[in-house]
Amino acid sequence: MDTINHMKHFMEPKSVALIGVSRQTGEYAFNILKNLLDYSYQGRIYPINPNASEIFGVKTYHAIAEVTENIDLAVISLPRSLVPSLVKKCAQKGIQSITIVTQGLGDASDEKGKQLQKQIDEIVKKNKIRILGPNTFGTANAFTNFSSSFVKLRMERLPIGVICQTGIFLINSPHMKLIGKGIDLGNACDIDFADSLEYFEQDEQTKVIALHIEGMRDGRRFLKAAKRFTLKKPLIAMKTGKGDYAARAAQSHTGSLIGSDEVWNSAFKQSGVIRVGDTEELGDAVKAFCTLPPVKGRKVGIVSFTGGFGIVAMDACQKFNLKLPEPSRSTINQLGKISPSWLRIGNPADIWPGMMIGRTYMNGLTSSLEAFLADDKIDAVLFIGGALSRRFSANLCHLCEELAKAHPYKPFVCYLYGAYYQEAKDRLEESSKTMVFPSVERAIRTLSHLADYSEFRSSF
Amino acid sequence: MDTINHMKHFMEPKSVALIGVSRQTGEYAFNILKNLLDYSYQGRIYPINPNASEIFGVKTYHAIAEVTENIDLAVISLPRSLVPSLVKKCAQKGIQSITIVTQGLGDASDEKGKQLQKQIDEIVKKNKIRILGPNTFGTANAFTNFSSSFVKLRMERLPIGVICQTGIFLINSPHMKLIGKGIDLGNACDIDFADSLEYFEQDEQTKVIALHIEGMRDGRRFLKAAKRFTLKKPLIAMKTGKGDYAARAAQSHTGSLIGSDEVWNSAFKQSGVIRVGDTEELGDAVKAFCTLPPVKGRKVGIVSFTGGFGIVAMDACQKFNLKLPEPSRSTINQLGKISPSWLRIGNPADIWPGMMIGRTYMNGLTSSLEAFLADDKIDAVLFIGGALSRRFSANLCHLCEELAKAHPYKPFVCYLYGAYYQEAKDRLEESSKTMVFPSVERAIRTLSHLADYSEFRSSF
Repeated sequence: MDTINHMKHFMEPKSVALIGVSRQTGEYAFNILKNLLDYSYQGRIYPINPNASEIFGVKTYHAIAEVTENIDLAVISLPRSLVPSLVKKCAQKGIQSITIVTQGLGDASDEKGKQLQKQIDEIVKKNKIRILGPNTFGTANAFTNFSSSFVKLRMERLPIGVICQTGIFLINSPHMKLIGKGIDLGNACDIDFADSLEYFEQDEQTKVIALHIEGMRDGRRFLKAAKRFTLKKPLIAMKTGKGDYAARAAQSHTGSLIGSDEVWNSAFKQSGVIRVGDTEELGDAVKAFCTLPPVKGRKVGIVSFTGGFGIVAMDACQKFNLKLPEPSRSTINQLGKISPSWLRIGNPADIWPGMMIGRTYMNGLTSSLEAFLADDKIDAVLFIGGALSRRFSANLCHLCEELAKAHPYKPFVCYLYGAYYQEAKDRLEESSKTMVFPSVERAIRTLSHLADYSEFRSSF
Repeated sequence: MDTINHMKHFMEPKSVALIGVSRQTGEYAFNILKNLLDYSYQGRIYPINPNASEIFGVKTYHAIAEVTENIDLAVISLPRSLVPSLVKKCAQKGIQSITIVTQGLGDASDEKGKQLQKQIDEIVKKNKIRILGPNTFGTANAFTNFSSSFVKLRMERLPIGVICQTGIFLINSPHMKLIGKGIDLGNACDIDFADSLEYFEQDEQTKVIALHIEGMRDGRRFLKAAKRFTLKKPLIAMKTGKGDYAARAAQSHTGSLIGSDEVWNSAFKQSGVIRVGDTEELGDAVKAFCTLPPVKGRKVGIVSFTGGFGIVAMDACQKFNLKLPEPSRSTINQLGKISPSWLRIGNPADIWPGMMIGRTYMNGLTSSLEAFLADDKIDAVLFIGGALSRRFSANLCHLCEELAKAHPYKPFVCYLYGAYYQEAKDRLEESSKTMVFPSVERAIRTLSHLADYSEFRSSF
């Protein structure tokens, strides 16, 4: 069986054996079977438990050998000393894809853990099976309502895939929603980043991939896969374990090799991988690649209620290597019409004085944003404005929705402030192809990632 | 009149004249008088309007000279060409503190703006008056329900003061709440940072100050004031206009001089000012100094549900210069009791394997956190955990509340993930002296600011 088919077994199993499943329910049960039933997973489930013939109404088998049907995936969550013999039994039954949830194997500090891992490795070598983990949540797939995570997930059908080395990334949080589809490599004794990329490369439900990398055995193979992948879809990587001490800790967690941080930087750059520094940057970037159109270049136009935050945006553009060109003549003319004569019109454009003229506000704002969005000298537009009152904010949102619709080929993002920030953000991100950021810095940083990827793609 | 009394007129006026006030109401009126009535401001208000004898039920005067009572503060929002003569009339009436809201004076690109500003400067020189602005929201004070901002504010009685050069910082947003009390210096033609610091130095309602600095005329005077101030209260500064181009823009906005960014860095360091890079960092730091106890040193203990995010925390500690010492013998022993034998116990401490033993979860977590919080070798504790389900999250919150109460002299902060993040954050920050961060990086960065300030204070 080739890698793709193995990976499909992990990601889209039609039948799954759960080895080591209990009757426990409730908040602290962390029961994979109960989770699958709650998700309404439609595949066949074979719980294995020597002491039960039924759990939660599902027929339960005393041993894996008793199951006569074909099984795509086995998920093992048993005490570590039992794992090698169970892997062997799975192989004998003809199961070719096995997720090992159990901790304390390659990640253990004692000799026993390493010996047990070696036994597993030998079984893998002798049989045509593939292992995901150990020390893993396994996989998650919102499109088939499947996950082997013992933590119950709130999956959404997002076009995002994640490949990670800790289960946190499979848990959607308000500050980082990545699932979609996910693969937790855990100790990565067998299935690795390159294997997982092969799956996502051909997967049409996934448009962008997030990576959480602590280290890997075969960096060369990964980079080759990444280079091919990034020609099709964006790949965003958070590489942790940067310092010596952290790198050693990462090595003990995954049992894998670590390169110096500079080596990673240049490898990522060469293969078109967007590197991010923390989870917020990762969440922002992934969302942007899902939401916004590709950006043509590095030239940003800024339309702001306040000159002071125009300066904040200039600092951010300098930091993240974006340009702030003079707008075209027609843009300057359009802003000139609505601005007081004493106002210097440029980029960033301070539009509050113009909005106050005639006290119509929305007219001045509309014509300023329209001019920047239509300007050929501008590749992306950041709007800095206030969600100042319920009605003002609602009007602002309506305008931004219309503008985003009218300019679908130019990234248009917002930094908003004021008491109605959250309402405005929720509405705009729900209704249109725009993003609302909690800081100017994060908006500009995210646009710079879009620009980096466009540059990489256009160099081929 | 000395600076303090002038500043009290701006911040806590018992009587205010509003020069240039209309009958307009509604979302787009931006009416200062209406705002003051909505805030239930208890001082006397004297609206000045040549064409009205009453607005919103408040007796209105045709000219400032008609008011016979004493006036602490005049707020001028009139077209720019009318401003100098009105300033003169205020001075003649004996008003000594004047806020000029009007734009297009020193901040204008034309000669007329600069000439009008010069006229104002000359009136100030000849009279014992002080000017705040022009181009300003003026001041805000939640403790007296006063603000001259034309944007209606949602002030909260927070022990935070802000001195800024754009009105945004006076507008409380979900991602940055600073008011409290605030002074928008605008163009800063007269009242400046040093004057404002004098007010906050003696103000007992303010425990921490946020600065937004674009530039200033008299850096030496500011640094002298800052040095004295930071011996009493923390001072957090966001200095914008870093690059040459942004610096020039800042100069045009405030008409003030700008030093190189490196000069600012070392000046801040010498005077004990905590410098932050963006608005999120500013909001985090200000909240931390209000919420958390002072930290004794740079030694952080990390208790994590996941080894993977322990590594993320190690990266962040290296970046922000915090230490991760080995815990004391007794801490290691306590964790050893609840952990599987194969687990390497250190700092960060990966506690999930221990939590799973016996399936009690909260017991293992409690004893791990208690050990770290009681450990003399640890100055602050970061807990990394999952708000995984409603009940699990509620139990987690209960535990963190109890621990924060039991250890009031050691900063205890959390990074949480999972669907119940926001509920857990709201509850914990409401009920106890802890903070919940949306990223590990931001938690560690904030602790490093606390440590920097403690080091500065202990060096005297």
